[in-house]
Amino acid sequence: MKPIQFTITKKIPNALGRAGVLETPHGTVQTPAFVSVGTKATVKGMTPEMLKDMGGQITLCNTYHLYLQPGDELIARAGGLHTFMGWNGPMMTDSGGFQVFSLGAAYGKGISKVLHPAEPSQQIPERSSADDGVPRLATVGNDGVSFRSHIDGSLHYITPEKSMEIQHNLGADLIFAFDECTSPTEERRYQEEALMRTHAWAKRSLEYHHARPNAERQALLGIVQGGRDEELRRRSAREISLMRSTGGAEFDGFGIGGSFEKDDLHSAVQWVNEELPEDKPRHLLGIGEPEDLFMGVENGVDLFDCVAPTRNARSTGTLYTKEGRMRIMNTKYREDFTPIESDCGCYTCTHFTRAYLAHLFHAKEMLGSMLASVHNLYFLTHLVDQMREAIIAGTFYELKESFMKSYAK
Amino acid sequence: MKPIQFTITKKIPNALGRAGVLETPHGTVQTPAFVSVGTKATVKGMTPEMLKDMGGQITLCNTYHLYLQPGDELIARAGGLHTFMGWNGPMMTDSGGFQVFSLGAAYGKGISKVLHPAEPSQQIPERSSADDGVPRLATVGNDGVSFRSHIDGSLHYITPEKSMEIQHNLGADLIFAFDECTSPTEERRYQEEALMRTHAWAKRSLEYHHARPNAERQALLGIVQGGRDEELRRRSAREISLMRSTGGAEFDGFGIGGSFEKDDLHSAVQWVNEELPEDKPRHLLGIGEPEDLFMGVENGVDLFDCVAPTRNARSTGTLYTKEGRMRIMNTKYREDFTPIESDCGCYTCTHFTRAYLAHLFHAKEMLGSMLASVHNLYFLTHLVDQMREAIIAGTFYELKESFMKSYAK
Repeated sequence: MKPIQFTITKKIPNALGRAGVLETPHGTVQTPAFVSVGTKATVKGMTPEMLKDMGGQITLCNTYHLYLQPGDELIARAGGLHTFMGWNGPMMTDSGGFQVFSLGAAYGKGISKVLHPAEPSQQIPERSSADDGVPRLATVGNDGVSFRSHIDGSLHYITPEKSMEIQHNLGADLIFAFDECTSPTEERRYQEEALMRTHAWAKRSLEYHHARPNAERQALLGIVQGGRDEELRRRSAREISLMRSTGGAEFDGFGIGGSFEKDDLHSAVQWVNEELPEDKPRHLLGIGEPEDLFMGVENGVDLFDCVAPTRNARSTGTLYTKEGRMRIMNTKYREDFTPIESDCGCYTCTHFTRAYLAHLFHAKEMLGSMLASVHNLYFLTHLVDQMREAIIAGTFYELKESFMKSYAK
Repeated sequence: MKPIQFTITKKIPNALGRAGVLETPHGTVQTPAFVSVGTKATVKGMTPEMLKDMGGQITLCNTYHLYLQPGDELIARAGGLHTFMGWNGPMMTDSGGFQVFSLGAAYGKGISKVLHPAEPSQQIPERSSADDGVPRLATVGNDGVSFRSHIDGSLHYITPEKSMEIQHNLGADLIFAFDECTSPTEERRYQEEALMRTHAWAKRSLEYHHARPNAERQALLGIVQGGRDEELRRRSAREISLMRSTGGAEFDGFGIGGSFEKDDLHSAVQWVNEELPEDKPRHLLGIGEPEDLFMGVENGVDLFDCVAPTRNARSTGTLYTKEGRMRIMNTKYREDFTPIESDCGCYTCTHFTRAYLAHLFHAKEMLGSMLASVHNLYFLTHLVDQMREAIIAGTFYELKESFMKSYAK
């Protein structure tokens, strides 16, 4: 018996997109779905009840952060992550690979999941070799990655086996094989070298996982890498999907990893999903802007996670609306007694006005971040829900067109 | 028709304490009751729904803060404070007098509602005359108080009429006459002078209020002052309770104001409540430690408000328990997988462990402050609820004895 079951219920004709149902040991996820990110065992500013009320089906926590604080062994003794954080629904943990990347090759360069070369803080560096003078907290070797804690500077070493062990201790329903995330600016030779490591680590993750009883209750997803290179991306998708453990076990689903330039995202997702087997779930790691969600769903992605909605809400009071982003601290909202969006069904929009939210942000009140996070998470969760309903109703392209027309204006 | 109705349902035999029902335009409050403080139109870290679920019957917001930000006129245009902040239950606003005190005589001296001379930050100054070299933001005159905004330094002038106008704009169910709060360390001559001002301001507040239709939907409470002096306290209680507007209107209830030394609190409350008419509600302003709540209820106080439960929760992770205070960041709680209190019915205790709360505080996660605030507010709200039930059951002293024995140990 496999820990998850995935069933496709409807497809977008002549495209990769599909709607489905993902059954996990902690409940069912209607896909495509937006996954709320609870980095340190909490979606920032929200109780599990607020998350459920918002319509959240599934949550992703970060292996790297929880390994360092409070420690995966402590969480295991607490009865696992579900019990520890009081979230009884479907849950996933990432591999830790992306955090190690952002401490290593990308450290100090402001490189994130998607590069916007127009923004000065995200200028793409010429190259990211080890001798470019930027101090690093992580070093990648063939056996694993050594890194220093961003909290106390202590030295740690993570191998594929260690990543599995941590994720077993955390006990999420869906876990990921350890991978190396590369910058899109790396040379092809490095991309290929890193990809070989990612594949070797995927194999070791698969072996370790399936030699343990956790394989019965935790699904292991393999991560496809390969940067912006079509040949590497396709090769990676094929190798990861064909990979088997000694006992013949295969991955229960797939993650599409990487740090992307905005323009490369579409092609990478398409290449990968053209290669992956249709009958297993696919997660696009760390991507979640509205336009990327439409692109992903259209091209066969089933799950998305992204910190942007809660981070944007908290840090600058930036709110998603169907007409684009709204900065709630703008003077014009101080006396605006309408909701963020009058037709939005979220708790924030059904109870509070823009003027009240503006006041909370100006007064630096915690409730401002809480209510803004609720709205932004609802917005993206509900947007993907609408895409799913549109796929089922056969109206995906109409939804996409009308949304993008309004959002881009 | 008066805006509020107050009915005493049961008394503590041979004492001033009583249980009652306070009916307001926005619902009924079972008294004695603990009032949650929502200084800037939000109880920090809690949605109105969380407040209701916690068992909160009534909320108090601060006139001074809301006058400065976002402005009482803006709140009036929003439809009043209830609508603005989404709290549809009973609500009160304070007079602004205490904030003006803490900007003036007490400025820079760390003087708060209750002085604990043992704490170095709260050493009582020798005297607090105007020439002691401490810069002040407020100056008290006979007509009113001029002060500088703590936000932008702008100059403001508040008179009794202005305080009424602001509180009319805010629209709470219970509002307070403008008063001057004095330090317990002031000389008697100054106390008496300040008290005469407080009485003159009470009269002006009463006149202004009852010349306006707001008197039909907002109850005005007079504030009793007089420091630690028995004669002044009793005189103040008598004068405020006998005070009538030109049209013959009297106060709908009373506030007991002041900045106290811990030992003076009991006697001041007793003197005042021995003088006040029995049939109107009494609010002890800004007091809310468990031992003070027992003392107040025993001595005939019906309502209490205090920022301590949410402030202690947020700033240091200090939690109230029946065995005394708990500092959740203490190392011993890191692996303690029990709730804060195993028999507590609050959302936090029924869903999360000490270890999880400790993690949230160590990781500086907002949810830590949220959950700690829920518990502390529940603790005090529920404690006063228990006192009310005990008065009705005739077991108040048994409750007090058993609680204090456990709490003080």
